[in-house]
Amino acid sequence: MDNELQLYTYFRSSASWRVRICLNLKKLKYKSNYVNLLKQEQKSEEYKKINPNQVVPTLKLPDGQILSQSIAILEYLEEKFKLEYQLLPDDAIKKAQIRSVVQLIASDIHPIQNLRVLKEVGEDKKAEWAKKWITDGFKTLEILLKETAGKYCFGDQISFADIVLVPQVYNAIRWKVDMSEFPIIVRVEKNLSLLDEFVNAHPDNQGDCPPS
Amino acid sequence: MDNELQLYTYFRSSASWRVRICLNLKKLKYKSNYVNLLKQEQKSEEYKKINPNQVVPTLKLPDGQILSQSIAILEYLEEKFKLEYQLLPDDAIKKAQIRSVVQLIASDIHPIQNLRVLKEVGEDKKAEWAKKWITDGFKTLEILLKETAGKYCFGDQISFADIVLVPQVYNAIRWKVDMSEFPIIVRVEKNLSLLDEFVNAHPDNQGDCPPS
Repeated sequence: MDNELQLYTYFRSSASWRVRICLNLKKLKYKSNYVNLLKQEQKSEEYKKINPNQVVPTLKLPDGQILSQSIAILEYLEEKFKLEYQLLPDDAIKKAQIRSVVQLIASDIHPIQNLRVLKEVGEDKKAEWAKKWITDGFKTLEILLKETAGKYCFGDQISFADIVLVPQVYNAIRWKVDMSEFPIIVRVEKNLSLLDEFVNAHPDNQGDCPPS
Repeated sequence: MDNELQLYTYFRSSASWRVRICLNLKKLKYKSNYVNLLKQEQKSEEYKKINPNQVVPTLKLPDGQILSQSIAILEYLEEKFKLEYQLLPDDAIKKAQIRSVVQLIASDIHPIQNLRVLKEVGEDKKAEWAKKWITDGFKTLEILLKETAGKYCFGDQISFADIVLVPQVYNAIRWKVDMSEFPIIVRVEKNLSLLDEFVNAHPDNQGDCPPS
């Protein structure tokens, strides 16, 4: 009950990154509690009590309530702090299109190339595996964005789709996906990466990022 | 523009199944357009125009608008047809908890044991792979449901969480997950499986299910 928002986060976690961007856009101050995934801190008995799924992020509200799963957290923040910065439009169809892009990334791409899955895939195969799934998903995404993108994924208004896009592009580059196939994704990501709220949420700018 | 809801569906697709349950609960009539995934009909040029991601489900609205991604479709139906049958409570925290369970299944479990991924994992390893990821996810889910379940996942009120749970349990049984570890999941699924709306959405009761 520290009377403030607390985010359990790891600098390189895509899902934590999404929530960091959302909190920044909505100008919500929060305290970062760092959970080092490489050191398996998410598996500690202490953290398991906070998040039985042993993943980040977890958001602790000022009243002690605990929320997990990045997309559920985004939806909560949008409902409670819509006036601070609106990330879903009022129109139901447009909202569905944005959530569809969110799920394409958050369900069809990201989980399959997530660390815990790559570990099971094995050292010799993981690079090819990650690259394949991201490339497949981005092919669809590029087609969808052709219809909707302006400066950002949906016109010139930042939405949930942009929040999940940026960490996924970072992973794509990390796994050497040929981004020249995806000019719209590249353009949108470049526009977003210039914004303070996105810069401040970047892994390199987190307190738990090791000095390079 | 046939002036009716049309669902592009495959009897065994978990994501199509979710939308079928939701449409039934909300008493929305729809026409089924069957897309045979085994025959790769989702990869036809005709279907790619409807859904560039080449997956089911896709929901075509009476005015010709097209929605994809099961969770985005559920959210749309809830917003437009809340009065017909409410699947998310008004309270923002409870809503977040339900969406968290939805994402646990729809992002952390289901995509990793989906057909297209199992194909890449390979014939000799896929059974063990699917069983592992479902078991891991159900361990977390059982802990979460201990706090929230009544007759259903959240008290005695059917929610989005129940809609995604039922197809996931079907997959668990198919992949020989030891369900005796998960008494709450088993109890909730049994309660749900008795309801007409769930029975009518079951793969066995779809027009494209081959005769046994």
